[in-house]
Amino acid sequence: MSLSGRQVQVVAYPRGPVEERHFEVVEVPVEPVGPGQVLVRNTWTSVDPGLRLRLREAAPEGYFVAFPLHAAMDGIMTIGEVVESRAEGFAPGDTVWHARGWRDYAVVDASAVQLSGLGTLRVLDTSIAEPQWYLGVLGGMGLTAYAGLSVVGALKGGETVWVSAAAGAVGSLAVQIAKLHGNRVVASAGSDDKVRWLLDDLGVDAAFSYRAAPVGEGLAIAAPEGIDVYFDCVGSDHLEAALDAMNRDGRIAICGSVSEYESEPAGPRNLFLAVAKDLTIRGFRGSSNLDLLDQMQAELGAALADGRLQQRETVFDGLASAPKALIEMIAGRTTGKTLVHLTDVR
Amino acid sequence: MSLSGRQVQVVAYPRGPVEERHFEVVEVPVEPVGPGQVLVRNTWTSVDPGLRLRLREAAPEGYFVAFPLHAAMDGIMTIGEVVESRAEGFAPGDTVWHARGWRDYAVVDASAVQLSGLGTLRVLDTSIAEPQWYLGVLGGMGLTAYAGLSVVGALKGGETVWVSAAAGAVGSLAVQIAKLHGNRVVASAGSDDKVRWLLDDLGVDAAFSYRAAPVGEGLAIAAPEGIDVYFDCVGSDHLEAALDAMNRDGRIAICGSVSEYESEPAGPRNLFLAVAKDLTIRGFRGSSNLDLLDQMQAELGAALADGRLQQRETVFDGLASAPKALIEMIAGRTTGKTLVHLTDVR
Repeated sequence: MSLSGRQVQVVAYPRGPVEERHFEVVEVPVEPVGPGQVLVRNTWTSVDPGLRLRLREAAPEGYFVAFPLHAAMDGIMTIGEVVESRAEGFAPGDTVWHARGWRDYAVVDASAVQLSGLGTLRVLDTSIAEPQWYLGVLGGMGLTAYAGLSVVGALKGGETVWVSAAAGAVGSLAVQIAKLHGNRVVASAGSDDKVRWLLDDLGVDAAFSYRAAPVGEGLAIAAPEGIDVYFDCVGSDHLEAALDAMNRDGRIAICGSVSEYESEPAGPRNLFLAVAKDLTIRGFRGSSNLDLLDQMQAELGAALADGRLQQRETVFDGLASAPKALIEMIAGRTTGKTLVHLTDVR
Repeated sequence: MSLSGRQVQVVAYPRGPVEERHFEVVEVPVEPVGPGQVLVRNTWTSVDPGLRLRLREAAPEGYFVAFPLHAAMDGIMTIGEVVESRAEGFAPGDTVWHARGWRDYAVVDASAVQLSGLGTLRVLDTSIAEPQWYLGVLGGMGLTAYAGLSVVGALKGGETVWVSAAAGAVGSLAVQIAKLHGNRVVASAGSDDKVRWLLDDLGVDAAFSYRAAPVGEGLAIAAPEGIDVYFDCVGSDHLEAALDAMNRDGRIAICGSVSEYESEPAGPRNLFLAVAKDLTIRGFRGSSNLDLLDQMQAELGAALADGRLQQRETVFDGLASAPKALIEMIAGRTTGKTLVHLTDVR
């Protein structure tokens, strides 16, 4: 009997909020393993804000590719165990990452470059970290936070850094990295609970909920002397507030604009302040900074090991919960890295 | 009899387009010259898009200062001749620049830092250039074009560079500097005459009028393979078109947003493309790059001398024409550097 497995497929593109009805879980035969390929039984799969951008007929230009309807969704980071290998360097039992997630089993071309290289099949060292950490702090999330602050934000210590969506997967790492580099860190999030976690556990210097008051007001109280670096995961009103609060020669690192993914983006009306204040605004993708991956894993891995860095996960159980995980994350009801644990793969 | 002179004063802040009625020419006594001060009879005074931002009760944050009503307008670059000096290093007959323009006579503190240093009183070498060139190609305009391309745009040659408002004071220098540095240069302007000038005299590779078709369409024809650097003097629809057309790792240097100075700015709705394509957007002021002034004057002065660089002026005659000069420039009806020649100072 040939192997079969489930996969989540998009069956309709949402107009407005994502709902579970936009997805379907489908049982499909697993393809045969060809030369240079590896069969992986997935164990953890990733849920990222950026996936929302691909639930459209036409995804934003760049290398975002729209998910096709009624087909497997490629380009989602996933952890799994090699079941069968016809590729050099991979053996049954290896823990790997790759980018063919949201499914039970994946047949992966070992040499295929995925997600600009970040998602290319790779054996992971599970002696130093839990496997799923490679989807968060030691993977794309860590790389995004690390590259955004060190390269784009040009952290130099002694400055005020604001991180939005700071209780999210990337934001919760960014606030900690900024603290480790000797900055005053201001964090914003969407609930009082998250604000407490940021203050009490992650040690930020000030935090506020953007639901409690207009974000500019919260920011003015948290950073009365302005900000030098803004790490933007939100866009829209947050980005406008940052432009207002920026000190001269400030830097804005934009890794995402989650507030705009389900609506028409408006664009910051005060972008001209970039001229008045000599500001640098850089959009960036974590995966465009693959050259920093080893350095990031070494630095953040060491900080994790000795307790200077914390990470938190919101775990959904079973493949069928992946759409719900995405919905909850976009709504701001998850904390830290959002993951699906594939406990029910046969 | 004590000396008196005219000055242009703002008497009402425009809501919408600037009109002549927002200004008044007033004859005032010239202050006595104190220790450390110099009396200058102005000969040329500058008309810049940025002045429009200061015709408001509250100017944009940064170092823009609103012009007060019924008072002299400080912070406008001007050329003049020293009449009387009580400051070391300045003697009657010296040609100087300073920032107390839009008036016949100015009493200038020799050591006062004006316009971030750019407008601080300075003796000019008129053996190598016409005095008024120091308001254009060898002054703030040249510095803005030069710094925007070399520092912010990080020109490296062999790329495609788009300059908007390319027939303007800064733009017409930017296209030529980009050409001198070995790039393919695309220019846009607001009339067919300007387009012809850009193509025939300034030697750009492609040019289009943004009034002939939506700017994105003109750009797509002029730069079918996308652009690597965008030098933005316009903002709004131009900036959106640039974000759409940008190649990966592109740079946008924003020196101004003249399209937005008389209306509510909207902000680019596609700013998220900065993330998708790893774009850098930098606002900057020419005066923030004073360290480049000598280098710019040497490089552009040499290019002027041997004919590799052209410059063009639109000259209005007499102090009272300054408001009209500003109105015409904002409406796009001037070419090159807009100047007022103070031929009628008594």
